[in-house]
Amino acid sequence: MKSHTEYLTFNTRKRQEIIDITDRVQGALEKSGVREGMVLVSAMHITASVFVNDHESGLWQDILDWLEGHVAPWDHHPSRGDDYLHNRTGEDNGAAHLRSLTLGHEVIVPVTEGRLDFGPWQRVFYGEWDGQRKKRVIIKVLGE
Amino acid sequence: MKSHTEYLTFNTRKRQEIIDITDRVQGALEKSGVREGMVLVSAMHITASVFVNDHESGLWQDILDWLEGHVAPWDHHPSRGDDYLHNRTGEDNGAAHLRSLTLGHEVIVPVTEGRLDFGPWQRVFYGEWDGQRKKRVIIKVLGE
Amino acid sequence: MKSHTEYLTFNTRKRQEIIDITDRVQGALEKSGVREGMVLVSAMHITASVFVNDHESGLWQDILDWLEGHVAPWDHHPSRGDDYLHNRTGEDNGAAHLRSLTLGHEVIVPVTEGRLDFGPWQRVFYGEWDGQRKKRVIIKVLGE
Repeated sequence: MKSHTEYLTFNTRKRQEIIDITDRVQGALEKSGVREGMVLVSAMHITASVFVNDHESGLWQDILDWLEGHVAPWDHHPSRGDDYLHNRTGEDNGAAHLRSLTLGHEVIVPVTEGRLDFGPWQRVFYGEWDGQRKKRVIIKVLGE
Repeated sequence: MKSHTEYLTFNTRKRQEIIDITDRVQGALEKSGVREGMVLVSAMHITASVFVNDHESGLWQDILDWLEGHVAPWDHHPSRGDDYLHNRTGEDNGAAHLRSLTLGHEVIVPVTEGRLDFGPWQRVFYGEWDGQRKKRVIIKVLGE
Repeated sequence: MKSHTEYLTFNTRKRQEIIDITDRVQGALEKSGVREGMVLVSAMHITASVFVNDHESGLWQDILDWLEGHVAPWDHHPSRGDDYLHNRTGEDNGAAHLRSLTLGHEVIVPVTEGRLDFGPWQRVFYGEWDGQRKKRVIIKVLGE
């Protein structure tokens, strides 16, 4: 079994951002020499996500608005209405934790004949829910 | 390491449907000859899901009603109330993208002693959120 | 390829609980002897979750309140307002199914140089959404 590991680092200008990282996943796959296997792409933080969806900026805004307006508003707990209990620890990012849980923090991409075995519209994204500081993603290719 | 790859194709009659694909995952495992490892089952589209849950039709309707009534209504963005920005591209399936993100697009099934190592009620489902056209799922078995 | 499989059993005192299982995942990794690979941690039930997040009790309460108050209330379907159709089968845990789907039932942890390759705050949790009975989690380490 072959394995190859890389780490990506992000330091976003906005606190929330969605970044297409497909080319970097592809680059890691090429370096690995793996022809059959999988690529694990996983955020190393609990206030970020990695997910597969569409390279379309309107959709990205739909996702950001959905997270803020429906899933987990930044300044109040979505059902209690008061502040997140987590924010009593000195943090202010309780919302970012719930957003990470909703979208997930990792994906597995299948590798077939040396390529990311995606459908025509699938792309890998890093979702930053509490940025403006250094954050990391691990890419691990496993296979043969 | 052994690997075995299959592709399933769906063309649902309804636009949203939940389909039990456990037997097809089991069939792919048998063809692979893998005794210890895992099966990746992953939608190749960004408007569909693959998930593990219960073979019970009332629950499937609960899920469909929850997606439409609570997670991401088809005809308006769940927090803004107006249309999905994604739908300005000529698509009308912004809701299907958010549904795919909520339930996820893939699962990993553990394989032990040549069988899907599931609890008694676990089954694998394809969730079609924008069907009535050809869609695909990849099954990739990896192990020994 | 090496593989190592363990099963954890839980019987929670409360019906909903969040339990840190990182040390048990670490223990399984040590027994496996795997240096490069991954660990699959997967609930064997459709009314439970496995997820990665923060070891902070305020956050755990935020998650429990969010699941009950926003994602899937125990005693009524979140959008229809009446009971879950699933509960007409004699069950009362329709909500637990939707909670399992929202947070997911499994994670993959990357393994690098013999350790769980996590960021500084990442921990693995078992989320019990319908407990007070025996439930299981599978840990499967795969790699070399």
